[in-house]
Amino acid sequence: MFPRLKLNHPMRWSRIYSTLDSHAIRLTSGSKFVKIKPVYGLRGSSSADFVSPPNSKLQSLIWHNPLQNVYITKKPWTPSTREAMVEFITHLHESYPEVNVIVQPDVAEEISQDFKAPLENDPNRPHILYTGSEQDIVNRTDLLVTLGGDGTILHGVSMFGNTQVPPVLAFALGTLGFLLPFDFKEHRRVFQEVISSRAKCLHRTRLECHLKKKGNSSSIVTHAMNDIFLHRGNSPHLTNLDIFIDGEFLTRTTADGVALATPTGSTAYSLSAGGSIVSPLVPAILMTPICPRSLSFRPLILPHSSHIRIKIGSKMNQKPVKSVVNLSIDGIPQHDLDVGDEIHVINEVGTIYIDGTQLPTTRKAQPEFENSKKPRRSGIYCVAKTENDWIRGINELLGFNSSFRLIKRQSDNE
Amino acid sequence: MFPRLKLNHPMRWSRIYSTLDSHAIRLTSGSKFVKIKPVYGLRGSSSADFVSPPNSKLQSLIWHNPLQNVYITKKPWTPSTREAMVEFITHLHESYPEVNVIVQPDVAEEISQDFKAPLENDPNRPHILYTGSEQDIVNRTDLLVTLGGDGTILHGVSMFGNTQVPPVLAFALGTLGFLLPFDFKEHRRVFQEVISSRAKCLHRTRLECHLKKKGNSSSIVTHAMNDIFLHRGNSPHLTNLDIFIDGEFLTRTTADGVALATPTGSTAYSLSAGGSIVSPLVPAILMTPICPRSLSFRPLILPHSSHIRIKIGSKMNQKPVKSVVNLSIDGIPQHDLDVGDEIHVINEVGTIYIDGTQLPTTRKAQPEFENSKKPRRSGIYCVAKTENDWIRGINELLGFNSSFRLIKRQSDNE
Amino acid sequence: MFPRLKLNHPMRWSRIYSTLDSHAIRLTSGSKFVKIKPVYGLRGSSSADFVSPPNSKLQSLIWHNPLQNVYITKKPWTPSTREAMVEFITHLHESYPEVNVIVQPDVAEEISQDFKAPLENDPNRPHILYTGSEQDIVNRTDLLVTLGGDGTILHGVSMFGNTQVPPVLAFALGTLGFLLPFDFKEHRRVFQEVISSRAKCLHRTRLECHLKKKGNSSSIVTHAMNDIFLHRGNSPHLTNLDIFIDGEFLTRTTADGVALATPTGSTAYSLSAGGSIVSPLVPAILMTPICPRSLSFRPLILPHSSHIRIKIGSKMNQKPVKSVVNLSIDGIPQHDLDVGDEIHVINEVGTIYIDGTQLPTTRKAQPEFENSKKPRRSGIYCVAKTENDWIRGINELLGFNSSFRLIKRQSDNE
Amino acid sequence: MFPRLKLNHPMRWSRIYSTLDSHAIRLTSGSKFVKIKPVYGLRGSSSADFVSPPNSKLQSLIWHNPLQNVYITKKPWTPSTREAMVEFITHLHESYPEVNVIVQPDVAEEISQDFKAPLENDPNRPHILYTGSEQDIVNRTDLLVTLGGDGTILHGVSMFGNTQVPPVLAFALGTLGFLLPFDFKEHRRVFQEVISSRAKCLHRTRLECHLKKKGNSSSIVTHAMNDIFLHRGNSPHLTNLDIFIDGEFLTRTTADGVALATPTGSTAYSLSAGGSIVSPLVPAILMTPICPRSLSFRPLILPHSSHIRIKIGSKMNQKPVKSVVNLSIDGIPQHDLDVGDEIHVINEVGTIYIDGTQLPTTRKAQPEFENSKKPRRSGIYCVAKTENDWIRGINELLGFNSSFRLIKRQSDNE
Repeated sequence: MFPRLKLNHPMRWSRIYSTLDSHAIRLTSGSKFVKIKPVYGLRGSSSADFVSPPNSKLQSLIWHNPLQNVYITKKPWTPSTREAMVEFITHLHESYPEVNVIVQPDVAEEISQDFKAPLENDPNRPHILYTGSEQDIVNRTDLLVTLGGDGTILHGVSMFGNTQVPPVLAFALGTLGFLLPFDFKEHRRVFQEVISSRAKCLHRTRLECHLKKKGNSSSIVTHAMNDIFLHRGNSPHLTNLDIFIDGEFLTRTTADGVALATPTGSTAYSLSAGGSIVSPLVPAILMTPICPRSLSFRPLILPHSSHIRIKIGSKMNQKPVKSVVNLSIDGIPQHDLDVGDEIHVINEVGTIYIDGTQLPTTRKAQPEFENSKKPRRSGIYCVAKTENDWIRGINELLGFNSSFRLIKRQSDNE
Repeated sequence: MFPRLKLNHPMRWSRIYSTLDSHAIRLTSGSKFVKIKPVYGLRGSSSADFVSPPNSKLQSLIWHNPLQNVYITKKPWTPSTREAMVEFITHLHESYPEVNVIVQPDVAEEISQDFKAPLENDPNRPHILYTGSEQDIVNRTDLLVTLGGDGTILHGVSMFGNTQVPPVLAFALGTLGFLLPFDFKEHRRVFQEVISSRAKCLHRTRLECHLKKKGNSSSIVTHAMNDIFLHRGNSPHLTNLDIFIDGEFLTRTTADGVALATPTGSTAYSLSAGGSIVSPLVPAILMTPICPRSLSFRPLILPHSSHIRIKIGSKMNQKPVKSVVNLSIDGIPQHDLDVGDEIHVINEVGTIYIDGTQLPTTRKAQPEFENSKKPRRSGIYCVAKTENDWIRGINELLGFNSSFRLIKRQSDNE
Repeated sequence: MFPRLKLNHPMRWSRIYSTLDSHAIRLTSGSKFVKIKPVYGLRGSSSADFVSPPNSKLQSLIWHNPLQNVYITKKPWTPSTREAMVEFITHLHESYPEVNVIVQPDVAEEISQDFKAPLENDPNRPHILYTGSEQDIVNRTDLLVTLGGDGTILHGVSMFGNTQVPPVLAFALGTLGFLLPFDFKEHRRVFQEVISSRAKCLHRTRLECHLKKKGNSSSIVTHAMNDIFLHRGNSPHLTNLDIFIDGEFLTRTTADGVALATPTGSTAYSLSAGGSIVSPLVPAILMTPICPRSLSFRPLILPHSSHIRIKIGSKMNQKPVKSVVNLSIDGIPQHDLDVGDEIHVINEVGTIYIDGTQLPTTRKAQPEFENSKKPRRSGIYCVAKTENDWIRGINELLGFNSSFRLIKRQSDNE
Repeated sequence: MFPRLKLNHPMRWSRIYSTLDSHAIRLTSGSKFVKIKPVYGLRGSSSADFVSPPNSKLQSLIWHNPLQNVYITKKPWTPSTREAMVEFITHLHESYPEVNVIVQPDVAEEISQDFKAPLENDPNRPHILYTGSEQDIVNRTDLLVTLGGDGTILHGVSMFGNTQVPPVLAFALGTLGFLLPFDFKEHRRVFQEVISSRAKCLHRTRLECHLKKKGNSSSIVTHAMNDIFLHRGNSPHLTNLDIFIDGEFLTRTTADGVALATPTGSTAYSLSAGGSIVSPLVPAILMTPICPRSLSFRPLILPHSSHIRIKIGSKMNQKPVKSVVNLSIDGIPQHDLDVGDEIHVINEVGTIYIDGTQLPTTRKAQPEFENSKKPRRSGIYCVAKTENDWIRGINELLGFNSSFRLIKRQSDNE
């Protein structure tokens, strides 16, 4: 799904952000046509409703309160994306004066020079960009719009962490991807459909990774749209991982590692490791071994109600050493794990805990979001183009079931 | 799941059965300790309720009306199974006088000589065996008990065809299998749990195969617990199959064939063809290519709401010929398919038909069951031993993730 | 390699052929520009020498006696191939008057109407086509030229059965294939290189299949350029095959079947069944399971000195029945095998028989070829275009290692 | 083949060794029953001859000059191995007074306390252990005996680096392995066979890895018995590797990495990555992708005459960074490679360089061995137990083609 790579330099973003007092954002009007305002002045975010129509596997996105606050994020440092963002914001300001445009502080700075003209239908009104702290943005966003690639969605969504993610409208800019149904050229028509409650969404769910270091009583939680994987990385030594499903011992792997993936992630790393391609509509968790030292470790498809626990065993032929396994989430390296550490992985919706099993206590990792917005953990609704985006994706993006040319020609000629 | 083999000689059963007038069964008391009575005298079948308890992925099997009519089927012509059946029936008669035992007519004949003694607690009461036509049995059965292997369950369930299948309690006799949680030695304890509403069930669903011959307006429906597959069989020519999902063209295969499987069937033929292992709790349909002429036809996991249509294309390098593709359902060869024929495959529960797609009209294949019992098509509830029968199955039956012995020893010693 | 299909209707060829007395061919001059002569009047075939130059993995094809007798075969009933054949023969007659053109009797008839003009440089000389019995053709051919697809080569080579196959020069006509290095457009240049001893050849070897029916003391031998496979075909029952290598028991398969392939055939059926791609320069025999009922039956690459014996075991869950396994050689169905039958497979060159192992006695299947030409069994030399035809083949024909488009674009843009 | 791990702490060995002046070894008699002598006093090593008998795929090991100098190496710090070594040396001293026992300096020290008694048949003669510098040992060894696991062989052989490796006699101690045909209990009988020229050997060949850093004119050579692999290691970024065979561009991989393996190594890492199992008698080089971002990168089997060049391309979505790819040889991490670096891999015997291709110049990495012994590079002869050690290995060590238990039982019972 996502390339396992990018992530748009979170360093830079957080550095900028940390210099700001949460409610007192530095307002520097970047140009005479732009005015930057604090996002905390906007009304709180308004949740959309999702209705399942007959004869459809998608959900209709219905705004009971009118859509007002649109948070737009983009791939950084790409001129074409910057231009597209200015074009999109201008269109919103021209055609939907009731809509408030929210951007990150650094993006506000970056693009404010790019607005070269006043609004056509109201030359005295400036382009207003709302910005502020991440928490304020999270608390006021009705709709998330991303301009870029799959990685841009990933980064945009990750900001909403453990809270309810708003509906996602993603436009492709110079990149194809499974999460990118729309070309930017379609932005006028598609936004009109979204704001007028005529769009449909595909419901995707994330995995939660609860990391519990040995000796600690609480765990750290991270979400994955694509996958969570453990890998021996540079170590010449294989890793033993003890895997439990719903409290029952499944197997001990001796392998390079193991990947746990959402159906969304079934076309990312899991596919490289030999996993099946799973429709995003299947409620399941994929467990795919990475280079196992076994002839008989076949990929597994587990129910999305599963509670998966993986404990790091000692390396083969080795006394325990530090930092034996790398943990990656959506391709981003996380903590290294030592012998005795464990991760618990569940889907963000619908886990059933069998008697005697439970998650470790969660460490309060993001206290600033406490009480601000109740986490609803109900997955992510992504605006879809058709019922069959996925089928087109596996054919067009993966080259699924490509015929041998040898065969094609023969069937014509011989 | 099922071996693709057996099926217990349906020939013989139907031959015997067809000689009987449906409601006037030939009652031949096989022994002085046995009395055979017509099943149509029993009350109609009573459906159980299935309740989802918290902390469980299984359903509790609750009898609102007491369990009375137990239909017992067995693997034919195996002395050990015959002995077990007599032992089980004797136990029911001794311990549960309110329970009526139903068997097939030929089984009644076969085993009636095997009851060698009167009931211990009531020497004057004979062993009563109820039997009759298939329709009468179907209409009166509360619980289906099978003694034998996976194939015995398959055959027992197939009799209920398009109607609601009763809960299934399966005992293994000389065979291991994914559908066989209980050893026969446990029969007293397990039956006590079932009749006292303390048992739990795993819910499995079947696929429906709607076969529509070219030029016909209606289709024939067959159910599959494991899988439906198309294969070129003996033909030296490869088959072209055009596959559509929910009306959208997915791909044209050039392959030996393709298998569609339930999660239950993921450990049967689909596994041999390279498919993933799917938990029976995942609502999905597996599509696994069989020896594709492509490097990039990876197995797919589709939503169980999918409507899959496969149309037979012309063979490569060939003028159309007759009978080009074999259709097998649960391992049993069915009609051969010609160019232009098609099958539609859905799960028996939950299909969502996208606008513009629909199943072909069903030919009324089993008129005798009409009006007798409304098809509810809600899958099959199989009495389970533990929450984790499946995990034990893939380890014990498949040898999942067997370590190399080389490695095992080294980790101990080197 | 070869498609497993075609084979150019051997029926028709043998029918025509069988009506001819071997040495008294029916000579019907098909046109005023063509004269048909008996092939037995030509001198016996003259073997080329093959020299390994330094810095090359190919063999130089050196004619010590000048190349004279060129046997040309084509794909039947394809107008474009027929035209190409006439063009090629005309070129030979115009440019190489010393070369004798040999064709099959039916081809002589088919094309003789197509020569519409006399030779340019000698208008009084007709086009002479030599033809006759298969044995006479075999005994006089210096070079085999094929016009068509891989199947045309297969058929042309099979006529040489157990004798030394002449060098093969293959032109592609409307078909791509691993055995087809040259486009027909190159025929003038390439033939000039061949006749002037400036061509290079890739050495390919065939497998020999010795089929021994139970109770028979002798076996029938067939050669395979691509593969030999056993398959259960239409049977719903799996097959047990006991496999021995050099007299040592290797394994008992429970599977749809097993394929034995040459490296040449590694891109044919073995590939579909999951086998590796093997360079034709590797002296090896591939053993690839077909849908095994095992998680741990990985494809094997055996030395080309191996003596492989496969014995048909009884079907699972079954009393022995007749015709349980289909044998196919280069995609052509052969005898069906019953329980107790066995095949022995070796490479045509270099088998080493371990003490205590040997082939069964060969039945004299082709007495007409006895004494006529000593079988040398030294493989087939195929005129090659470059050192790296194979690398181009796996890229262009198989779409080897196709990147995901998703990735390609991202690496450009994101 | 080899576990990818161990390697017996070369650190410690080289540390000890480097404290010695090459020809003036510190002689500390460790016990009154042991005398340590300098190995440079022994005669130079005497090569064995290898003869191919008919009806065998092995080579007979024939000593023209009597076997005298036996270099014994063992797995370090394992009491059971130390005891076995003392037992073996004692046996040699008692039964073969003409044989000189050579050990590493640190081993001489380690075990000299363990000889607790004089020789039985000559109580006045001490146990003599020869030792000295690596170069001196290499130059005087007739036979290499290893006590331990596959890793012990690997380490023992690596000392002979670029020179002719002596025949290897390997005893298993507490470990199973493909390279370990003999149990230590057999040591008396087996050594008697070896010294009396009645043993047979399996010929294995190694790969050579020529590492050429960007901008350097010369390369460093390392040998691999099992495999050479490139892997992205901890990097979140995928690696682009451009692969050339005999100068022809094969493919650009986007993958975790790629493994090149000998047939010996086909059961090591290549197997985990999905490669075929290749008999050690097949002259070939395996190329197996590691988690490729492609559905169509199938493992390749290349001729052992191949010259493979792999060049590190830039990472996806990334500006070039340092140390982008890890190189491992026989499981041991080597240099990290940067963009523009390349490796050339050939088999140590039989490479054919196509015109225009050649290896980079080799840096003189091991000057001490210069002129001392001419590298013959003819592979490694390993004393074998039977013709079919390999077949037994894949069955016993890998659990090749394990049947499903479900099937086994059913075929018995149902």
